Amino acid sequence: MRLKLLSVSLAVTGWIQVFAAQASEGMWVPEQLPEIAGPLAQAGLKLSPGQLADLTGDPMGAVVALGNCTASFVSPNGLVITNHHCAYGAIQLNSTPQRNLIVEGFNAAVPKQEVSAGPNARVFVLDAVEDVTERARAAIASAGSDPLARTRALEAFDKQQVAACESEPGYRCRLYSFFGGNAYRLFRNLEIKDVRLAYAPPGSVGKFGGDIDNWMWPRHTGDFAFYRAYVGKDGKPAAYSLDNVPYRPKHWLRFADQPLGDGDFVMVAGYPGRTNRYALAVEFDGTAGWTYPTVSRHYKNLIAMIKAAGERNPDIRVKYANLMAGLNNASKNYDGQLEGFRRIDAAAQKHAEEDAVLSWLRARGDDGADALAAHRQLVTLAAQRRAVRDRDLVVGQLHRTGTLGSAIQLYRLAIEREKPDAEREPGYQQRDYPTIKGAMEQMDRRYVADMDRQMQQYWLREYLRLPKEQRLAAIDHWLEGDDDGAVATAVAHLAETGLGGIDERLKWFGADRAAFEASTDPVIRYAVAVMPTLLEMERQEKIDAGEELVARPVYLQALADYKKRHGESVYPDANLSLRITFGNVRGYRPRDGVEYLPFTTLEGVVAKETDEEPFNSPKALLEAVKAQRYGGLEDQRLGSVPVNFLSDLDITGGNSGSPVLDANGRLVGLAFDGNWESVSSNWIFDPTMTRMIAVDGRYVRWIMQEVSPAPQLL
Amino acid sequence: MRLKLLSVSLAVTGWIQVFAAQASEGMWVPEQLPEIAGPLAQAGLKLSPGQLADLTGDPMGAVVALGNCTASFVSPNGLVITNHHCAYGAIQLNSTPQRNLIVEGFNAAVPKQEVSAGPNARVFVLDAVEDVTERARAAIASAGSDPLARTRALEAFDKQQVAACESEPGYRCRLYSFFGGNAYRLFRNLEIKDVRLAYAPPGSVGKFGGDIDNWMWPRHTGDFAFYRAYVGKDGKPAAYSLDNVPYRPKHWLRFADQPLGDGDFVMVAGYPGRTNRYALAVEFDGTAGWTYPTVSRHYKNLIAMIKAAGERNPDIRVKYANLMAGLNNASKNYDGQLEGFRRIDAAAQKHAEEDAVLSWLRARGDDGADALAAHRQLVTLAAQRRAVRDRDLVVGQLHRTGTLGSAIQLYRLAIEREKPDAEREPGYQQRDYPTIKGAMEQMDRRYVADMDRQMQQYWLREYLRLPKEQRLAAIDHWLEGDDDGAVATAVAHLAETGLGGIDERLKWFGADRAAFEASTDPVIRYAVAVMPTLLEMERQEKIDAGEELVARPVYLQALADYKKRHGESVYPDANLSLRITFGNVRGYRPRDGVEYLPFTTLEGVVAKETDEEPFNSPKALLEAVKAQRYGGLEDQRLGSVPVNFLSDLDITGGNSGSPVLDANGRLVGLAFDGNWESVSSNWIFDPTMTRMIAVDGRYVRWIMQEVSPAPQLL
Repeated sequence: MRLKLLSVSLAVTGWIQVFAAQASEGMWVPEQLPEIAGPLAQAGLKLSPGQLADLTGDPMGAVVALGNCTASFVSPNGLVITNHHCAYGAIQLNSTPQRNLIVEGFNAAVPKQEVSAGPNARVFVLDAVEDVTERARAAIASAGSDPLARTRALEAFDKQQVAACESEPGYRCRLYSFFGGNAYRLFRNLEIKDVRLAYAPPGSVGKFGGDIDNWMWPRHTGDFAFYRAYVGKDGKPAAYSLDNVPYRPKHWLRFADQPLGDGDFVMVAGYPGRTNRYALAVEFDGTAGWTYPTVSRHYKNLIAMIKAAGERNPDIRVKYANLMAGLNNASKNYDGQLEGFRRIDAAAQKHAEEDAVLSWLRARGDDGADALAAHRQLVTLAAQRRAVRDRDLVVGQLHRTGTLGSAIQLYRLAIEREKPDAEREPGYQQRDYPTIKGAMEQMDRRYVADMDRQMQQYWLREYLRLPKEQRLAAIDHWLEGDDDGAVATAVAHLAETGLGGIDERLKWFGADRAAFEASTDPVIRYAVAVMPTLLEMERQEKIDAGEELVARPVYLQALADYKKRHGESVYPDANLSLRITFGNVRGYRPRDGVEYLPFTTLEGVVAKETDEEPFNSPKALLEAVKAQRYGGLEDQRLGSVPVNFLSDLDITGGNSGSPVLDANGRLVGLAFDGNWESVSSNWIFDPTMTRMIAVDGRYVRWIMQEVSPAPQLL
Repeated sequence: MRLKLLSVSLAVTGWIQVFAAQASEGMWVPEQLPEIAGPLAQAGLKLSPGQLADLTGDPMGAVVALGNCTASFVSPNGLVITNHHCAYGAIQLNSTPQRNLIVEGFNAAVPKQEVSAGPNARVFVLDAVEDVTERARAAIASAGSDPLARTRALEAFDKQQVAACESEPGYRCRLYSFFGGNAYRLFRNLEIKDVRLAYAPPGSVGKFGGDIDNWMWPRHTGDFAFYRAYVGKDGKPAAYSLDNVPYRPKHWLRFADQPLGDGDFVMVAGYPGRTNRYALAVEFDGTAGWTYPTVSRHYKNLIAMIKAAGERNPDIRVKYANLMAGLNNASKNYDGQLEGFRRIDAAAQKHAEEDAVLSWLRARGDDGADALAAHRQLVTLAAQRRAVRDRDLVVGQLHRTGTLGSAIQLYRLAIEREKPDAEREPGYQQRDYPTIKGAMEQMDRRYVADMDRQMQQYWLREYLRLPKEQRLAAIDHWLEGDDDGAVATAVAHLAETGLGGIDERLKWFGADRAAFEASTDPVIRYAVAVMPTLLEMERQEKIDAGEELVARPVYLQALADYKKRHGESVYPDANLSLRITFGNVRGYRPRDGVEYLPFTTLEGVVAKETDEEPFNSPKALLEAVKAQRYGGLEDQRLGSVPVNFLSDLDITGGNSGSPVLDANGRLVGLAFDGNWESVSSNWIFDPTMTRMIAVDGRYVRWIMQEVSPAPQLL
């Protein structure tokens, strides 16, 4: 996308003009770095943009991906720092009712005490990025006018590129589409598979404030943890083994030697997951008017259900803690987005902008005709999706529950396995086997039969409430009834499955299609019964996707052209690929008469103390603060050790754990959250209120020095 | 007190030294003004302190008392500005379910449309202050060692001084004791008895934020209203009459012509009711450990009871609105004080200070002996009160309910009336008759039989829960039972009273003692039955007071000496007499990471809008803000019209309605609240968190210009 946009000089000028007003907006792709050198220097960067642009150099080469989070190397011995909440699954995985690491934290005195973060834990070290736009578009074009063929052509291209890229063992590759398909880039990463937990503070530090403080400021969360990346003795990635040795990264970050203060330059490199800043108004309406309120409501119901069950059964409390954290986070996020949409009247902004673009296109006559047609097509596609959205939500959620989800995935795997590897559905190729197998193994630590049944029942009852025209004949037929009684019978029947057991799941992991179709396991029988319908739904989705493959880039190119003409910044929506965001440490005014200061301090942790979760700090912390044992980490301007800080950077989910670097590229903290007012910026960026929340590097060091000492890491 | 304290030059020096650190602490008596000239000038005052010290000159002569609030003249035609909540009783009194002025507001287009604020409404214009310390102490000393005689001697002196002072009709006089009896001053006020409501904004402005925002920042309350003072055609005070004419004050305040900003000098003159900054540690403990939590709990019960009843009966909603406001305010205040005590560890501070004083006194040998003995005696008196505190609270509250309270007051009046006027109990002299009669009349507007019964029942049930040793034989005997059934029977019996009717009450207002004692009215029979006990309790209180009259001044003088030696400011506790407090416009940091800015703006009013009470602004307001119709009243620094502002002044209950003056003595706002963190300053002043909340004069004018226009007043 960058090449196209920046080849128009007007765009660059316009974009720099607005830069001063919206210093923080922009999830820049690394290739844009040299061109934003001016604004970077203006914001305070002292490194050369050229140095930054070297993605495998110092400091960017130290930044790694975990899959759903970002992290960074901080030692030559493979030590990785990320958020506590990014390592939460690993911490939970190693917890038992007897030794709850979520509560106690974890501190390996020597590397050999470090524990596996789980078979699916990964550290991805970026190795190369290749622009494959021309070839991707050629592949799509070769498929002609059949939308399904287009989708399949791109899938084939994707798999072929990835396969070639991964031909050398130890690498993982991924094709990313930018700006609705206006650019394609292939990222190649070293895939480190032996990831171990090295250090986690007690949950009362790492998750201080819990769901109450989530998305909130002022914040006092010590949201950090350490992994260590291990490789085989040959230095190549290998599955977990006691024989493995710490990975030796080429680059690692160093803690800053200059104290960070209000107004200082900061930047973040990370893997933001998804933004929708270039979505259509109709897509925005669907999200604001239906998706968020609906999903939030369901998640709150699930939260209440799991909470009630957890009160009776501590096993559920432990095993569903991670899911609960996710549900809480998402529902609060959606509510916050909805509140933000109202605050900035996002719908009006969105429609006004789109109306202006369409008017501009109409005025362009023939030059605008293609884009207008593309827009019409996208609106039609959105309407088609709207017609089945209730069904897609409910059935999708039902099929993500424990045993049902496993059966569907395993059966599908067997179906795909009948094809040559290159022709298999993405996600079911040989390269995906370890992930699937890992999930089947890990399910044991995240599954309690009684809770799974309750979730099945919840979604099946919701299924019965779907509009008749959205019901699926296969499920109707399987259900053998149309009321809660039928659901109860069905759930009781499903409970006879063997898939709750790890051995059974692993057995089916290797089974062939015929075995599934002959099985009497009720959950597998369900999977077999609904599979033809699921495949047909998938086919329809691919047809839609094939339409989008042509329409979306055309309309988004027109939108970009329009924005450039109006001096707006242009960078692609987040897509899980590496991005840079930069700006300054800054507070904000959340409401009339109130200013949020950019730093919180140790004393604020103590002021929140209630002796009850989530505000129950460790005794050692309370005593150290009372005694003002700052350990040389205090900031003179604050008179204490900073805990969390705000800056005007542009991040979203996936950026969690991202290192925050100062003007010299030194580590000053970890991004772990956005403020409440920022969440709506995923759709429309609000520069006055959008702030990133980071844990200050000095607090990280203070905890490891005064509270849960880890001299072996410091 | 001032003369004694300030005659020691060390005190003055020490006090000025600490001034810079605690600019805001101090409710200065007007006589101290010349001596605090330096700090006043340093804070920014441009008037000469000499001008300020002239209490009947400009501007101080414009400041008046309303009894429980402060106010000020703002026109040569007797217009008085005060808080909406100070005029709330008058607004309520003139409200009916059909025309609810609480909701609609009130705006008399011409003076003759102005309505009476009620028979008991008063405007007191200060005329003279006389120091009578020597004579008061001589009167006490003349009574010798009998404490009851001492109390009666002071009462006699008080009545005699007041009677002499009030010999000229139209004046009201009051003797004030300062610093526990180390000084006595007689204040003489012109007593204006015809007070009328001229203007009140809609309740959605005047009470914006209601009980939710009460004591809170950021605040957006238009807490102002206008009275007009009327006198007879001869210019002398007279009861309400259509023939009366507006009073023409010698001085009135003018709105400031300079915009008030952050850091600017402000001062307040007013009538703060009560502080306890020189209380004993044991008295503090009793308040923090028992009084506040207990009373707050009871008030919350009453609030819930009245709220539930009001939902069924709109008459209750209107007639008990004023009581509800008071209960809400008090319980929230007590909770806030308790929170503040915890925040600053007030108990530890209080005990440490007292321990230091006692150590210092012990070290002084014979010179400290009297004060130590006085301290011991005060501790003993506190223990005696503690032994009956449950009873005093419950019985006191029961006897403040509608008909029971009336009967007790009327019967006591009949008893006192048998004595010569000068010998009657204070509060039951001829001079008090209009107040008592007014209360009997007004009760109609604040009484609903069903609600009164519920309150009787509540307190009688509480009575039954008292420790046995605190029960009163007279009530036990009257109750004829020891369970809720007995209470129900008693309340049903009391319901047969005629005192719920205004005519009946006024009949008994003139009745003699024998008539009461022969009455069969159940409420009067109750009053007759318990009166001997009440009189005995009162006698015991007077004995205790007589002990205090000697002990308290001795100990407090020692405490003052100690404080002076340690460079602390010394000014007497608030006692409802005129005080000056000054300082600067200033925000504060309520908690780590948060700063409260000193001004709120119109946009903040709109941001709080919910379309539901108490956040339902008038449509005209919302439209004016949306259209940015600032009417020339905006502050350039804020970009809008300021609504409320914070300053570091030292006020408390009674200061409500006080004019806030700028460096030139011009009106810039009205004090109406303290912040949540300040309420504990009644016991221990916390300079970092104590802030006064005022409505900005520009908002007052904006409301009267753009929302509920009152050109006739502006």
